[in-house]
Amino acid sequence: MGTVGWKQLLLSALESNAHLKHSCFFQLASIGTNGTPSNRTVVFRGFQDNTHNILINTDSRSRKIAELVRNPCAEICWYFTDSWEQFRITGNVDVIDRSNPDPLKLRQREKSWFARSLSSRIQYLVPEPGVPILSEQAQPEISLDPSTGPVDAFCLLILEPNQVDYLNLKSNQRLTFKSSVSATAEKSWIVERVNP
Amino acid sequence: MGTVGWKQLLLSALESNAHLKHSCFFQLASIGTNGTPSNRTVVFRGFQDNTHNILINTDSRSRKIAELVRNPCAEICWYFTDSWEQFRITGNVDVIDRSNPDPLKLRQREKSWFARSLSSRIQYLVPEPGVPILSEQAQPEISLDPSTGPVDAFCLLILEPNQVDYLNLKSNQRLTFKSSVSATAEKSWIVERVNP
Repeated sequence: MGTVGWKQLLLSALESNAHLKHSCFFQLASIGTNGTPSNRTVVFRGFQDNTHNILINTDSRSRKIAELVRNPCAEICWYFTDSWEQFRITGNVDVIDRSNPDPLKLRQREKSWFARSLSSRIQYLVPEPGVPILSEQAQPEISLDPSTGPVDAFCLLILEPNQVDYLNLKSNQRLTFKSSVSATAEKSWIVERVNP
Repeated sequence: MGTVGWKQLLLSALESNAHLKHSCFFQLASIGTNGTPSNRTVVFRGFQDNTHNILINTDSRSRKIAELVRNPCAEICWYFTDSWEQFRITGNVDVIDRSNPDPLKLRQREKSWFARSLSSRIQYLVPEPGVPILSEQAQPEISLDPSTGPVDAFCLLILEPNQVDYLNLKSNQRLTFKSSVSATAEKSWIVERVNP
């Protein structure tokens, strides 16, 4: 078990829990702008190409954006309810909104946008999340052309992990994975078995 | 909906998801001792008597204890996978271990201990969590007398909420509850409907 990387363990967990819609939901903790912890459920949108980086989509008007721009440190807690496995994935989050100066990152944002269903893209056109509802008026019907690129509120988050704590409550095993970066900027992972 | 308190919404969610073992699991975020966010799955152990305070049991040797003693701010993210409801519960955590000077709190800790099954109490006698496993030797069989009081590693956490964000993904409704304390130290909650 100790020789299998955490990404492989995570892909196996995703496979063995794939019958559960919520298996791609996890909790993302960040540091609130007032210094207190913030925690919410978000959806796994896959890995970035062939890396270990985790993709998340969010509304650029949500509170987590201001938090992550101020402090990019985050920890994912991902519990698989059928296989009883927990992944705690620590890393830094790159916030990619429409104002990002890097064309490669903007292309990645566009790719994420078109990977979403049309109905889920429409969610980024609704009124600002978290803002009080002052009147009960019905929201107008929103339509969106399928060829329209990412709207302003669409934001891509890329979490680059540097530490992973894996716990398996069925086998009662726990592994910690820590990354290190070599002089040639290559990333490698060191794994250790620890008491559960 | 706006007139129902968050505790009532939470009790209803617990009831409608009661057929799922994991419905009493939630993610607790705290601030790590290095200032980065920490996030892990813990188990709901009920409310403290007739209050809104949430009970959690944990191992006093786990990393979260050092974190919460240093910074008691925490945020629970509790997602109910069947009813599609999310509760984000923000508050301060009181750490009650064996060294607590308050006899009332120690009694509460003892009550929590005896509320646990014997087999789950034994979990507090295993080797220190998170410590590397250096040899493959089998752990000795552990036994515990049912009348034995809380062992040293048994720790009670009491989270006193001051803010709750409720999101219902089926009805697409979101409510925020904020507490305020009157001059006579009475706590009241103000609810507001916000955009989901």
